[in-house]
Amino acid sequence: MAQVLKLVPVDQALRSFLESIPEPGQESTEQVRTEEALGRALAEPVTAPHALPPFDRTTVDGYAVRAADTAEASSSRPAHFRLAGEVTMGTAPQLGVELGQAALLHTGGMIPRGADAVVMIEDTQAIDGTAIEVLKPVTSGQNVIREGEDVAAGQVVIPAGVRLRPQEIGGLMALGIVQVRVRARPTVAILSTGDEVVEPDRQPAPGQVRDVNSYSLAAVVDQAGGRPMRYGIIRDSAAELEAVSRRALGESDLIAIAAGSSVSVRDLTAGVIRTLGPPGILVHGVALRPGKPTILAVCGRVPVVGLPGNPVSALVVAGLFLLPALRKLLGLRGPEWASIRQARLTAAVASAAGREDYLAVRLEVSPQGLLAVPIHGGSNLIFTLVRADGLIRIPPEAPGLEADSLVEVRLFR
Amino acid sequence: MAQVLKLVPVDQALRSFLESIPEPGQESTEQVRTEEALGRALAEPVTAPHALPPFDRTTVDGYAVRAADTAEASSSRPAHFRLAGEVTMGTAPQLGVELGQAALLHTGGMIPRGADAVVMIEDTQAIDGTAIEVLKPVTSGQNVIREGEDVAAGQVVIPAGVRLRPQEIGGLMALGIVQVRVRARPTVAILSTGDEVVEPDRQPAPGQVRDVNSYSLAAVVDQAGGRPMRYGIIRDSAAELEAVSRRALGESDLIAIAAGSSVSVRDLTAGVIRTLGPPGILVHGVALRPGKPTILAVCGRVPVVGLPGNPVSALVVAGLFLLPALRKLLGLRGPEWASIRQARLTAAVASAAGREDYLAVRLEVSPQGLLAVPIHGGSNLIFTLVRADGLIRIPPEAPGLEADSLVEVRLFR
Repeated sequence: MAQVLKLVPVDQALRSFLESIPEPGQESTEQVRTEEALGRALAEPVTAPHALPPFDRTTVDGYAVRAADTAEASSSRPAHFRLAGEVTMGTAPQLGVELGQAALLHTGGMIPRGADAVVMIEDTQAIDGTAIEVLKPVTSGQNVIREGEDVAAGQVVIPAGVRLRPQEIGGLMALGIVQVRVRARPTVAILSTGDEVVEPDRQPAPGQVRDVNSYSLAAVVDQAGGRPMRYGIIRDSAAELEAVSRRALGESDLIAIAAGSSVSVRDLTAGVIRTLGPPGILVHGVALRPGKPTILAVCGRVPVVGLPGNPVSALVVAGLFLLPALRKLLGLRGPEWASIRQARLTAAVASAAGREDYLAVRLEVSPQGLLAVPIHGGSNLIFTLVRADGLIRIPPEAPGLEADSLVEVRLFR
Repeated sequence: MAQVLKLVPVDQALRSFLESIPEPGQESTEQVRTEEALGRALAEPVTAPHALPPFDRTTVDGYAVRAADTAEASSSRPAHFRLAGEVTMGTAPQLGVELGQAALLHTGGMIPRGADAVVMIEDTQAIDGTAIEVLKPVTSGQNVIREGEDVAAGQVVIPAGVRLRPQEIGGLMALGIVQVRVRARPTVAILSTGDEVVEPDRQPAPGQVRDVNSYSLAAVVDQAGGRPMRYGIIRDSAAELEAVSRRALGESDLIAIAAGSSVSVRDLTAGVIRTLGPPGILVHGVALRPGKPTILAVCGRVPVVGLPGNPVSALVVAGLFLLPALRKLLGLRGPEWASIRQARLTAAVASAAGREDYLAVRLEVSPQGLLAVPIHGGSNLIFTLVRADGLIRIPPEAPGLEADSLVEVRLFR
C-alpha cells in the first residue's frame, strides 16, 4: 500500500540507482560518419592527427614582413619595402621574404619563409607595382596564427563522453576525421499498463482513456538520444506484464513501465519487477511530488524505472530518473548544463516539508523582469504541461515558496 | 573594402532582415503522424474535439459518496455506509450511489451517478463485505477531477507556431489527434567558398585547409529543424559562385554562403548576391565581433546570409541571423526561452564601444557559484568553441566587462 512505502529523498534515490547501473562497454559502440554524428555521444577520445592550423597563417589582408624591418616605421616616416610577390590562396608560397621585402597575403594565407609578422593593408601605401610603404610598426607574430595554436598534433581534442555539437562536427572535419566511434543509441522499452487505457486512434468508451505515456515518454527518450520501442498497452495482469517485461528485458537496454495509477496496480508492477532478477528493486517510493510511487530497479544489467501512470508525474519522473539512467548508458560525462532561467514567482505556493515538489510554471516578460506564473493542475492533467515553459523545484526543507521569491525555472526542451 | 562598410547595430540588422522575409504560406506545410512530430512546428491551431478528461474521475483510491452524507463523520463517530459495489477500471459504472451508499473506486476510475466526492481509502474502515465506515468528512468535488477540467471541447489547446515537445505529443494523443499539420522543414542551401578550402576527406597541401563551415552550419540547421543541403566548395570566382547561387535559389528556402575570409572574396560574395534579384542586400557589415562582414539579403522570396569564413565567426553569425530567419520560415511564434546560465566572469575582458562582442566561455562550478572562464582564441580557431559551453555578449555601450561581473552565458545546444 502506498502509505507504507518508505520514502527515499530524490538525490539519494538517484545516487543508489545510478551506482547500480553497469558502465556501458565497448560492445555498445558503433562507427558513424562524422557528418551524421550530431547529438551522438563520443565513445572514445579523439586525438589530433596533426596540428591545427597546419601552417602559420595570416589573420588579415596585408603584407608579410620581417617585423624588425618595421621598427622605425611611422606615417610621417614610412618604411620602404620591395615587393617579393603575392601568396595566392590555397598554395604554399614559393617565394621567401628577405631584409626589406614584403609579400602580399590574403586572410588565411600561408606566411612565407623569412617573414614573422603581417602588416595590415590599411597600414600600408602602394608606391608602384614593385614597392610599398609601411606606416606603422608590427611586432614579431603580429597578425599571425601559429601552426598548432588551435590544436597540437597528438593532443586529445574531444574526450570520450561528449555529446557532439555543431562545433565538434566542424572541429573533427578540420582534422580530417570523417568517421567517429559513438555510443549506440540505447533501446528503451516503454510499457504502458492499465485496463482503462486504449490506443490513441481508438474512441474511448465511457471510463476509458487514451494512452498518453507511451508517446510522451517515447518523445523524451528520442530527444535524449535513446531509441524508444513501444510495447503497447498491457492489461492489469501480473502474468501479462511479466511476459512482456521479460521480452523487453531481452531486447532493450533500459525499461520504463508507466504503471496504472491505482495502488493495487503499483503493487502489481513492483511484484513483476521482483521476478526479473537481481539486484532487483532499489527504491520503491520517493519523497517527491508528483512521483511518489516511483520504482527504481536494476534487473541483470538492465535498469528498470516504474513511473506513475499520471501523465504529468510520468514526465517529471522521466526527467529525474529515466534520463540520468539513459545518460549513463550513453557514457555521457561531465555536467549537463541544465537550461535554467531565473524568474520571480507571481504567487505563493505550498509544499509539505520533507518532500521535493515540482510545479509547472509559465514564463512571462514584465518590466520588472521575468515572471514565473504557477500553473495549478492535477498531475493527471497533461495540458498543464502543454501550457508550461518549465518546472520549479521546491526543496524538501522548504514549507513552500512565497510570492515574489526568486526561483530557478528548469526549462522544458 | 571592409573599412568602408557602414556598420549596422545587431538588433537593427536583425529587424530589417526579418521584416523583409515573407511569411510562410500554406504550401509549406505537411501532414505527419503525431508520434513522429516531435520538434516540428505546428502549422495550424489544434482544437479539442472533446473535453478532457471526458468524464468525472477520482484522483485517489477510495469510495465515491454523496459528500453531504459525510458531514458529521469523525474518527470517534464514524459515518456508516452501505457498499453499492465496485467500479472496475475502464468501464462505465452500472451502479449509482444513493443516500448512505458508497462505491469502491480505483484512481482514475469514473465517478458513478449520484456521487459527488471520493473518500480516500485511508480515511475509511471496512466493516464487512457490505459496509464501511468513513472517519473524515469530504466536501463536494473533493478528490474528483471534473469532465473538462484539463480541456473544454472546442478549445484551442495548441496554437499555431508552437514547436512540439513531449507534452504536446502526449496531449494530442489524449485527444485522439494522431495526425497533425506541421511546417515542412525548410531547405537550407549551404555554400562554402575559398580557393584554399578542400573536402574534409582530402589531405590538404601546404596552404590549404579543410572545409569546416559546410558541416558545422549543416549541423546548426539540422538541430533547428531545417533540412541542410550542402552545395560543396566553390572556387573564388564570381561566375562559379553566381551559377551555384542561382541553382540554390531555385532549390531552397534559405541560402547560407560561408565566404572566404579575405576582403576581396567578401566583395565577390556581395557582388554575386546583388545579381540574384530584388530586394537584394539589406545589410552589409554589422557592428559585431566576430561577424563584422556579415551580409543579410532577400532575393525574391529567399533570405540569403553571407557569413564570414572563419569558423567561429560563422557559428556566431548563424546563431544571430541564420537561425532567426529559419524560425520565421518555420512559422515559430512566441518567445524562444534562450538557454541561459548566470555566472561570474573570472577575468576582465575588453571590447570596443559601439560594437557588440561575443566571447566564448567555459563554465566551472565553484563553492562561490558558477564561474565563466573566458576562452581566448581567434575566430579562426574552431576548437575555441569545442572547449566552450556558451557565449557571453558584451553590449555595444560597454567598453568591456570587469572580472567578477555577473554575466549571462548563452549555452550552446
